[in-house]
Amino acid sequence: MKRIVQSLRKALPVAVLVCVAGSGGVQAAEFESYKRYFEPLPALPPLPSNNSLTPEKVELGKMLFFEPRISASGVISCATCHNPALGWSDRIPRAVGHDGQVGERNTPTVLNSGFLEAQFWDGREPDLEGQALGPIQAEIEMAMELDDALDQLARFDVYQERFKEAFPGQADPLTAENVAKALASFQRTLNTPNSPFDRYLRGDDNAMTEQQKRGMAAFVGNGCIACHRGANFSDSRFHRFELPGSTDEGRFVVTGEERDRFAFRTPTLRNVAVTYPYFNNGSVDDLHDAVQLMGEQMLGRKLEQPVVDDIVAFLHALTGEMPRITFPSLP
Amino acid sequence: MKRIVQSLRKALPVAVLVCVAGSGGVQAAEFESYKRYFEPLPALPPLPSNNSLTPEKVELGKMLFFEPRISASGVISCATCHNPALGWSDRIPRAVGHDGQVGERNTPTVLNSGFLEAQFWDGREPDLEGQALGPIQAEIEMAMELDDALDQLARFDVYQERFKEAFPGQADPLTAENVAKALASFQRTLNTPNSPFDRYLRGDDNAMTEQQKRGMAAFVGNGCIACHRGANFSDSRFHRFELPGSTDEGRFVVTGEERDRFAFRTPTLRNVAVTYPYFNNGSVDDLHDAVQLMGEQMLGRKLEQPVVDDIVAFLHALTGEMPRITFPSLP
Repeated sequence: MKRIVQSLRKALPVAVLVCVAGSGGVQAAEFESYKRYFEPLPALPPLPSNNSLTPEKVELGKMLFFEPRISASGVISCATCHNPALGWSDRIPRAVGHDGQVGERNTPTVLNSGFLEAQFWDGREPDLEGQALGPIQAEIEMAMELDDALDQLARFDVYQERFKEAFPGQADPLTAENVAKALASFQRTLNTPNSPFDRYLRGDDNAMTEQQKRGMAAFVGNGCIACHRGANFSDSRFHRFELPGSTDEGRFVVTGEERDRFAFRTPTLRNVAVTYPYFNNGSVDDLHDAVQLMGEQMLGRKLEQPVVDDIVAFLHALTGEMPRITFPSLP
Repeated sequence: MKRIVQSLRKALPVAVLVCVAGSGGVQAAEFESYKRYFEPLPALPPLPSNNSLTPEKVELGKMLFFEPRISASGVISCATCHNPALGWSDRIPRAVGHDGQVGERNTPTVLNSGFLEAQFWDGREPDLEGQALGPIQAEIEMAMELDDALDQLARFDVYQERFKEAFPGQADPLTAENVAKALASFQRTLNTPNSPFDRYLRGDDNAMTEQQKRGMAAFVGNGCIACHRGANFSDSRFHRFELPGSTDEGRFVVTGEERDRFAFRTPTLRNVAVTYPYFNNGSVDDLHDAVQLMGEQMLGRKLEQPVVDDIVAFLHALTGEMPRITFPSLP
């Protein structure tokens, strides 16, 4: 990790490093050079070759996302934890599922999740299709066998028709695979474009405040961008991290490899200001604390408070336009 | 109950009774006379003198309605059981609440609930203000002490401001009473105008099918309207009812009076086609079965199947325009 940061710092323009290290911050004109480290959020994430994005799939996926009757209790849907009113997450430390059971991990937002190349905190699925069926079956989440979930859906003519429309040409399209494809399609539309940062990158110099621009420079200069990079501010890779109080072994649970113990997939930083609390067990509420902790753990140093404040201001500029979703009408 | 029906039947035009009793149904022109038994749904229900309806209260009430952090688990909101995607109810037999506990009763829809003069199945509260705080505190629903709920809200500047805006001039507006007033205000906006039936009443003769018109006549002629009357198809009164398998004592639990044992407040029939399953324990899934059971229990006779079919068709004409609600953005 530190090596990544060091190599990155080598690549930075000298003037930038001097400015960031100094107390005066970066002059307005020089912010321009930072834009090349970033890219605005595309309208859509990459699409897999075997799951084209169609309006029919998206609409069906939306219904399934809000469908509580594919849970054992009949009241928990994807939207229970990935709540559109709460940044498509739940804003509690650890997820609460079937019969009030509390899981081990914080609910990640589904916003922009199509841009991630590894799903779940431990990356055990590579894509949204692989991710989609997990929470339905998990004993501590929706707790329903897939066959039972399909039986629930098959009771309704409306679902029979919608699956046929979304997957034309299939004799019996009401399958688990298609549930996953529809859910993944819907989620790929849940993106948050036009954040102040995106508008800044696209040429609106006034879209970010001076403090946010200083934060952007500090974000690059301090090496945060080593892992939080790309359109969704995540390398989709795994990094070891000692979170005080957490016993979660993270990626190790998936691979059994020692180097993965306590390693977690880099979370997106888009909309981070509205997707608190933070880290794998949601134990940190405040974004300043989260930034400071990252500085200590990942960068190996204590960031000065003004730098933390600037970075937090920058992170607030990553809050984009939320998808405008009306409730589906379920059968 | 039978006395109500009998007195109503006396009041009906002779021609109507003959027609309904006969097998030929009612001629088109004669349907006109039935309109006087009904009234279209008004745009808004009556407002209490101490809780004016303001945009600020409605918007705050909407936030609170979707706010899961005023539940002990942090994931159950009013909208969990009164789910906008499911006719503002849950479409399961009995409500599921805190820690997966299953309640004794079916969730009533909140649609048009401002038109009811008694809230809950047992009518233990007279209005929405009285109703609003019940589910937050109920151990099997949201399971949170009111003081804790207020503390949760007080953590957020946004709520502090919104309460001030909604209740101007109050030194400390973040109170349980105002939570109730805001929730009640939001719910008073959740009405479903312009159903086919309402459009028919307002003069569009083609808004209902011939079968639906026959069903309307049968609904009046058989006396369903004795209890299901007024704009919201409920007299807001209590009627004894022996539902097979139910041990719920209903209104008796509130009054302790023998005549109230197994009595329940007449539910609305508006949107009944989309608010299944039926009755106090949600044990009946099919609207035909529900109508037949009501005939036997409340009218004391077995309705012929074509009459049941006609009444069911009429009840489908009571599905109005659902409120178009986008998710609030919670702090």
